[in-house]
Amino acid sequence: MAPWTLRTVLVCAVLAAAVGTVRCSTGCSCTQEKVAFTLTRSTDEGRITGYNDDLIVTYDHVITDVGGSFSGLKNPSVFTCKVPGVYMFSFTALAQKHHSAYIKLLKNGQFQTALWAGRVQGNHGSGSSTAVLHLRRGDRVWLAIGSPGYYALHSNENRFATFTGVLLYPD
Amino acid sequence: MAPWTLRTVLVCAVLAAAVGTVRCSTGCSCTQEKVAFTLTRSTDEGRITGYNDDLIVTYDHVITDVGGSFSGLKNPSVFTCKVPGVYMFSFTALAQKHHSAYIKLLKNGQFQTALWAGRVQGNHGSGSSTAVLHLRRGDRVWLAIGSPGYYALHSNENRFATFTGVLLYPD
Amino acid sequence: MAPWTLRTVLVCAVLAAAVGTVRCSTGCSCTQEKVAFTLTRSTDEGRITGYNDDLIVTYDHVITDVGGSFSGLKNPSVFTCKVPGVYMFSFTALAQKHHSAYIKLLKNGQFQTALWAGRVQGNHGSGSSTAVLHLRRGDRVWLAIGSPGYYALHSNENRFATFTGVLLYPD
Repeated sequence: MAPWTLRTVLVCAVLAAAVGTVRCSTGCSCTQEKVAFTLTRSTDEGRITGYNDDLIVTYDHVITDVGGSFSGLKNPSVFTCKVPGVYMFSFTALAQKHHSAYIKLLKNGQFQTALWAGRVQGNHGSGSSTAVLHLRRGDRVWLAIGSPGYYALHSNENRFATFTGVLLYPD
Repeated sequence: MAPWTLRTVLVCAVLAAAVGTVRCSTGCSCTQEKVAFTLTRSTDEGRITGYNDDLIVTYDHVITDVGGSFSGLKNPSVFTCKVPGVYMFSFTALAQKHHSAYIKLLKNGQFQTALWAGRVQGNHGSGSSTAVLHLRRGDRVWLAIGSPGYYALHSNENRFATFTGVLLYPD
Repeated sequence: MAPWTLRTVLVCAVLAAAVGTVRCSTGCSCTQEKVAFTLTRSTDEGRITGYNDDLIVTYDHVITDVGGSFSGLKNPSVFTCKVPGVYMFSFTALAQKHHSAYIKLLKNGQFQTALWAGRVQGNHGSGSSTAVLHLRRGDRVWLAIGSPGYYALHSNENRFATFTGVLLYPD
């Protein structure tokens, strides 16, 4: 083998290794996008006489907000999708005494599913639900009390009202 | 440096970069398997006098079906595992008035856990539950009303009855 | 093109491909950490006259324990984080007849959120909740009946009381 061929092979091997390493550790790293939040509410909402449009549920405490979906917001309510993908949403609510709670899960204003916490004599009914939604960038997801003249959510310092969302798979 | 050495280095760098890029974007891509669904039901089920075998819960609407587990099915009910791995299942149901709802989570016919939505005077009890199951290819998971002569599920256009499943980790 | 240049290009391409492949298949593997469990309980707990400290909820059956968080434990209760990251917890409980169930989700003893299953005449109230928590290695998460002189959990062979946790994203 001529000396320049050997040199070429060596130089080339070192370069390929170096370049390959850089490529792999940047372009190939499995950087998982992370979006996961739980919001809670500590006060009642609903039972507004004569008001029957959907009443958006707002929250007053952030337990977790990985991805910063609600950073800087005082009363977060609407999740706006920044990372397109498949999300799971879970939500819980209690009913006020003498009333039921009826909470809709909405995506861009369109009904997806709903939670019912039925009226219980002298106590608070409880309800939870979960749904998977495929979201595009900019899609908005929120919870709303349906017919808030009739239905009403109860909570207190136990943070019984919750809204959780997690990104399962980015697109 | 001799001119041919410089040329070799340059050629080699360009080649390594190009080849590395192609390798990385194909062989190294982190292709996550995706399975995530939410089925809902909009009508009552159960309360069949004298019928006390488990009554499978069927659904009439698909909110999301990433992975196509139920594509082409008119009344989906049974999830059949095509991607072996660890799954999470969440399900919600209301009870019919004057009755309780008792819904079992079954894997290949074997009891895993159950949801109870207790009878509430003049209203609908509500229940939800969640469980993680490790599935092999071909494993089947479904929900069934236990003792459907006694127990009964309520739903309506609010899609109160739901069945959600998501793949957490492929094997 | 001089013959040695052509040879250089060929040698270099082969090398880059080979080295790139090795780099990619080792350094870039997407080994997902897996932690996912569901514990269930089959008996009542709570209603201890005069005892009002938090009463930790213990479980008597393990449906799934990917990651071995509870291996070897007879009555698992506390999840101790070995893989730091973002977790989701879901839990379900029924109330004993004539009582409500009040179950707190605690992280290192600090209140996060709570489940309420309100007293239902002649039946069992039902409740579920879900929360996302960001955990560090060694963080401990558990459920406890608050004021167990008043509140009480019901379960039986249907495993109505559940505690599920899953790792969404390792740090």
